[in-house]
Amino acid sequence: MSKLEDIVSLCKRRGFIFPGSDIYGGMAGTWDFGPLGVSLKKKIMDEWWKFFVEDREDTYGIDAAILMNPRTWVASGHTATFADPLVECKECKSRFRADKIAEGINESVTTEEFLNTHTKCPVCGQENWGPIRKFNMMFTTHVGAVLPDDDAETAEKNVAYLRPETAQGIFTNYKNVVDTFYPDLPFGLAQQGKAFRNEISPRDFILRDRECSQMEIEYFVNPNTWEENFETMRELQHEFLEDVIGLPKEKLHELEVPAEDRAHYSKRTIDFMFNYPNGEEELMGLAYRTDFDLQNIARESGKSMEYRDKVTNETFVPHVIEPSIGVERLVLAVLSTAYFEDEINGEKRTVLKLPENLAPYKFCVSPLLKNKPELVEKAKEVYNTLRKKYGNVTWDDSGNIGKRYRKQDEIGTPKCIVVDFDTLEDDTVTIRDRDTTEQIREKIANL
Amino acid sequence: MSKLEDIVSLCKRRGFIFPGSDIYGGMAGTWDFGPLGVSLKKKIMDEWWKFFVEDREDTYGIDAAILMNPRTWVASGHTATFADPLVECKECKSRFRADKIAEGINESVTTEEFLNTHTKCPVCGQENWGPIRKFNMMFTTHVGAVLPDDDAETAEKNVAYLRPETAQGIFTNYKNVVDTFYPDLPFGLAQQGKAFRNEISPRDFILRDRECSQMEIEYFVNPNTWEENFETMRELQHEFLEDVIGLPKEKLHELEVPAEDRAHYSKRTIDFMFNYPNGEEELMGLAYRTDFDLQNIARESGKSMEYRDKVTNETFVPHVIEPSIGVERLVLAVLSTAYFEDEINGEKRTVLKLPENLAPYKFCVSPLLKNKPELVEKAKEVYNTLRKKYGNVTWDDSGNIGKRYRKQDEIGTPKCIVVDFDTLEDDTVTIRDRDTTEQIREKIANL
Repeated sequence: MSKLEDIVSLCKRRGFIFPGSDIYGGMAGTWDFGPLGVSLKKKIMDEWWKFFVEDREDTYGIDAAILMNPRTWVASGHTATFADPLVECKECKSRFRADKIAEGINESVTTEEFLNTHTKCPVCGQENWGPIRKFNMMFTTHVGAVLPDDDAETAEKNVAYLRPETAQGIFTNYKNVVDTFYPDLPFGLAQQGKAFRNEISPRDFILRDRECSQMEIEYFVNPNTWEENFETMRELQHEFLEDVIGLPKEKLHELEVPAEDRAHYSKRTIDFMFNYPNGEEELMGLAYRTDFDLQNIARESGKSMEYRDKVTNETFVPHVIEPSIGVERLVLAVLSTAYFEDEINGEKRTVLKLPENLAPYKFCVSPLLKNKPELVEKAKEVYNTLRKKYGNVTWDDSGNIGKRYRKQDEIGTPKCIVVDFDTLEDDTVTIRDRDTTEQIREKIANL
Repeated sequence: MSKLEDIVSLCKRRGFIFPGSDIYGGMAGTWDFGPLGVSLKKKIMDEWWKFFVEDREDTYGIDAAILMNPRTWVASGHTATFADPLVECKECKSRFRADKIAEGINESVTTEEFLNTHTKCPVCGQENWGPIRKFNMMFTTHVGAVLPDDDAETAEKNVAYLRPETAQGIFTNYKNVVDTFYPDLPFGLAQQGKAFRNEISPRDFILRDRECSQMEIEYFVNPNTWEENFETMRELQHEFLEDVIGLPKEKLHELEVPAEDRAHYSKRTIDFMFNYPNGEEELMGLAYRTDFDLQNIARESGKSMEYRDKVTNETFVPHVIEPSIGVERLVLAVLSTAYFEDEINGEKRTVLKLPENLAPYKFCVSPLLKNKPELVEKAKEVYNTLRKKYGNVTWDDSGNIGKRYRKQDEIGTPKCIVVDFDTLEDDTVTIRDRDTTEQIREKIANL
């Protein structure tokens, strides 16, 4: 098994992440977070919210609806261009993303270019292709009283999309926030929430899923200062990823996206690449988007997006720096950084060396023996004291002590506290460290 | 204006809640939470999570995908029965929910019964109706490479729904959790997340929206003990709503749903009704659902949902107690409880008497005069100290002090702290109380 497969297996075995709708044979591209996965994901999202919103005076939170007026996506360009090249095998009717099954072509491939690659169908092995067609990745639905036998025109009038990014929910609220809070520039609007992309072939565990959670900030700046604002945002991303989330510097590196690969409106984009078990992949993006989005909204809505500087009285449309990160990509970066297999006294073990602030449980408390009521009672006492003090403390009296350690190692609990017969004499307990497996004795009062 | 309209107006004016996609003329039934609304909503959701998940040893969190295998909704009955009666005016083609425009009929109304009410079209005033049709409230989409010109069969094979409730994301993970955590009965699985209902006529602000956030627990119990487990859950709901969220007892009352109004599988349901400004409405439901859901899943998936008791070795399908609450309904209950208009020295004021644990800001700090650098500097010092200590502290130096008080009253900030010339002499500040408007002097060190 590859390391990624090991992580997928651990996640399912220990209740971090299950395949979506598993009981019915699944739903490709969706994942359900189990008890430990929710805990980890929530801690990561809460750390981000605290770091980028609550601890910053210049950033405000937003929580926009997933279903938005469809003009949003006309203005943003998604209706026209948020598409992948789809190709169908005329023999077996299988459909593929052309740029993923042929080598040396990209998303803008033409039918002719694709046919020239002489790719064979991955399913039936034939080479008999239909034309390349643009497949829009937005999920479509209908809002309001549309019936299945309504004509296409009625249906079309009520069309809506599942948002493919949270960013537009921020941009469409820019004016609401300016009109109610009169913030000074630069200011940020931050949002966490679901986004949906109808990937033709979802794959790579939670890296390329159809439903994901995003954390995005639109940082509105004076166009004259964009370079320094970009630097500030860049430093903040490193501080968050490395100091708060604990990703190692050496697994993370910046990729300056060259002009020809950037969106046409962006004057600078840095992709933050992470060294995942299956190779280097984008973890997040930091883009200078100029006033592209606000100008699109001004044109489509007919409303002014101008900002009046309180000191100079100058008016202009603010420019935007956008840090954008996928929660699941960050969860996988954390899991794959923490995942180790080592040997302890000749025995193989799997351990998740999660940082203390992200581990689902800080401590596990257990009695050395389950069938000794005096040990169980004392251990429960310690457990309840720690729970009151720290909250995220777990109890384990299953199997023998060795099995418990291996289980807590796998779910990333930093410390196991064991109550034994000595505890009853001198009020000390054994504290066993997850990473070193070293054990020390400590007074209960000092925990 | 009615009190509900006053609240809607305050929410928009102060940045709590904006109409969804407002910049494009809206998107009926959706709402965007602004900076203060996100703060309030997040605090409410965090209190729930802490109370029902983190502080309880018997309850686990789940976060399932919104897009689920469509067999989920066949098993649950939503595909067949989650529908409202739709009627179309043959004159003007307007469509309505039949039971909402005619009196004395309910959701199961027949065409004949409806025609007998002799209702006139609310739009054109004519009485020329088509037949009553069942309109399924689940939003439909297609997952995977389905093209607009694909035939109906291809489209149908790839159909999926936006989940109409979070509950089924819990039930479908019941077996995953039992197999990985082996919990003792009773145990709860809790989820917070979005749910979608294609209401024919969304209305009443955030009470009847098309996209909402739910907080649901499925509490799995031994069928022999359901009555006492039901009582426990019932008491917990009161404790949460009254002691944690601060809803007044007198606005909340239980409605025992009589057998003929309950879902056929439920042996007991209590609706928790809240006295909203526009009348009494359901705030949440507490239902004993027997083993209805798990048996449906067992039948549809062919997998056993049996639980083996660790002590008695007895096997059975657990029964379920379900407390289910809509976040937006709770937000509106909190806002409408907090909203008051009173008179202070002959001047009308609007005040949100939010509980301290839910108010977006705990303190507002400001200098008495904005143009005195020594006051501003001292006030910033106090502000930074309090921010470090409490986090949610705001700064206000706009307008005059009276205007600031009125603004902070409207957004529900419990205390305003003002730095004046005396502060520079004796290190005391004025603390002004939101509810009583009384002012006291206090040493900075004691804040």
